[in-house]
Amino acid sequence: MKTCLLHARTFARLRPRLKGLSAAVRIVTIDDAGKAHDAETSTQLAELPPIDVAFGNADGFYSPAVREFMTAILKSPDLDWFQSAAAGIENPALVMIGKKAKRYTTNHTQAEAMAEWALWQALDFVREGPAHRAQQAEGTWKRVGAREIRGSRWLVVGYGSIGQAVGRRVSALGGEVTGLRRSPGPAEGAARIVAPDALMAELPRADIVLLCPPHTPETEGMGNAAFFAAMAPHALFLNLGRGALVDEAALMAALDAGRPAFAALDVTRTEPLPADNPLWRHPRIVITPHDSADTPGTIAGADDTFLANLERYLKGEPLKHLVDASAFAGG
Amino acid sequence: MKTCLLHARTFARLRPRLKGLSAAVRIVTIDDAGKAHDAETSTQLAELPPIDVAFGNADGFYSPAVREFMTAILKSPDLDWFQSAAAGIENPALVMIGKKAKRYTTNHTQAEAMAEWALWQALDFVREGPAHRAQQAEGTWKRVGAREIRGSRWLVVGYGSIGQAVGRRVSALGGEVTGLRRSPGPAEGAARIVAPDALMAELPRADIVLLCPPHTPETEGMGNAAFFAAMAPHALFLNLGRGALVDEAALMAALDAGRPAFAALDVTRTEPLPADNPLWRHPRIVITPHDSADTPGTIAGADDTFLANLERYLKGEPLKHLVDASAFAGG
Repeated sequence: MKTCLLHARTFARLRPRLKGLSAAVRIVTIDDAGKAHDAETSTQLAELPPIDVAFGNADGFYSPAVREFMTAILKSPDLDWFQSAAAGIENPALVMIGKKAKRYTTNHTQAEAMAEWALWQALDFVREGPAHRAQQAEGTWKRVGAREIRGSRWLVVGYGSIGQAVGRRVSALGGEVTGLRRSPGPAEGAARIVAPDALMAELPRADIVLLCPPHTPETEGMGNAAFFAAMAPHALFLNLGRGALVDEAALMAALDAGRPAFAALDVTRTEPLPADNPLWRHPRIVITPHDSADTPGTIAGADDTFLANLERYLKGEPLKHLVDASAFAGG
Repeated sequence: MKTCLLHARTFARLRPRLKGLSAAVRIVTIDDAGKAHDAETSTQLAELPPIDVAFGNADGFYSPAVREFMTAILKSPDLDWFQSAAAGIENPALVMIGKKAKRYTTNHTQAEAMAEWALWQALDFVREGPAHRAQQAEGTWKRVGAREIRGSRWLVVGYGSIGQAVGRRVSALGGEVTGLRRSPGPAEGAARIVAPDALMAELPRADIVLLCPPHTPETEGMGNAAFFAAMAPHALFLNLGRGALVDEAALMAALDAGRPAFAALDVTRTEPLPADNPLWRHPRIVITPHDSADTPGTIAGADDTFLANLERYLKGEPLKHLVDASAFAGG
């Protein structure tokens, strides 16, 4: 019988849905105090047994016992499969697990919450949120001209799961979406797909530019002075990818020069962003603390991905969202 | 030949689209200085001739020459048709015109911009906009749990053009919409339509409650203490209808008592809202100055409605969005 590691909170949430699987898999848990249990019998274990399968989500990775959680995974001699709740694999801890696990699968359901972040920031920009709030603070009743998502032109740089989740929403609201990515052909939510070499030609006609490509040597620092200088003066810049995609000094200089008009960043080069970093205080930058995916819907989505893959695993079927081992080969 | 009055700015915008009609209709304009012109010849007129048709939009009604604009309409002995850019007819000036015009038509395209206002406010609420902005102001990087529109339950009170524009968007984003209105049967964007007597039963299960019914004796003050006490503690209250729908003292008391959680109002009982009104400073109320419809898209939508009706008018076809004369009979 296979042994599967879950954080205790994850098990508590999934217990009713795991019932039918208890003959096929032994579940062991670790809690925030670092205590191990056999989930079926609730017996405390002196230490965790070697595991075959683990599900790594926020419960484990943001736990006070994250070290014990990681150790249990990395010390198992035959880690057969690791399901991540994340889409990316660029984190050092995930790379270590990726090198260790025979199979490593990702999850893309957080794209839904992240897409709502993009809509939120875009609406607060086109509806003139800052101007409205300044007027409310002083008790001034004066109409503020606003724009709409309907009819707005979006350039989504990196048209993967996040880009498509944004594209579907913006298109449903009457916006026009251009997706930029390497693989050509039609994609859900986009009126057009263009290749990476069209970037500089596409930037000037976009009202809203969203960065959400993977972080690679090609995309590192792509949001630079030339990129921003090509944007329209009235445009909004959004980053849902990685902080390293953007030259932050160039962004602030571009905003000060009036092009683009505004920026909202869920990711920064240094995270947590230090309190004295000037990004916090720039009047045309909104910062959110890399929490665009942090919703109950995201937790539920990752749970669903894990359970569906667990069923496939126990039946010996191919897993979904498998990462090729070569992705972890370097470094 | 019929004579049609437009504000000079409206004519300047519509000129290319009116070209084909110059044999069928004489257009006269009035500008912000109150000067009248024959639009075809650009000849200044000593005074406006009697008119058959007028298009009343923001250009005219928010003009410094609004008095002259209104007088030209009301003094014409045979005002055959008035096209309003507004959906409502509750304004005293519009009632005067309604009593005078043989035919009066409304316009409902501003519902699109207003629906984006509702989405904007809902997203800023579920994404914890105020908490994020407070953290940014002090340079604090700390994840804030957020919720989503996806999976949220909306109760839209008054399921007319605005309600449906909201419902279509929320449904497209994965929310669940219940529309409340007098006429039963299915309606676009709503999972269910319920009758007005279901209000108190529906309120507790809604995450977001939007008021946008017409202002009538039945809806006056419907947002009262009992209404708010029936809402969920975590819920958001939105008003896109009229200020008179809400008992504002009861709303503030309800928010202070923790039910509902937050409110956003585009309309207030007194407009403009005086600077010393406590609504401005309530920490759980967002006020916007009745500008939810103020977008270029709204202006373009009203222009389209007018031009389409003008074509019908000149062909002798029935006009769309005709208001029954009895609506102006009272008062």
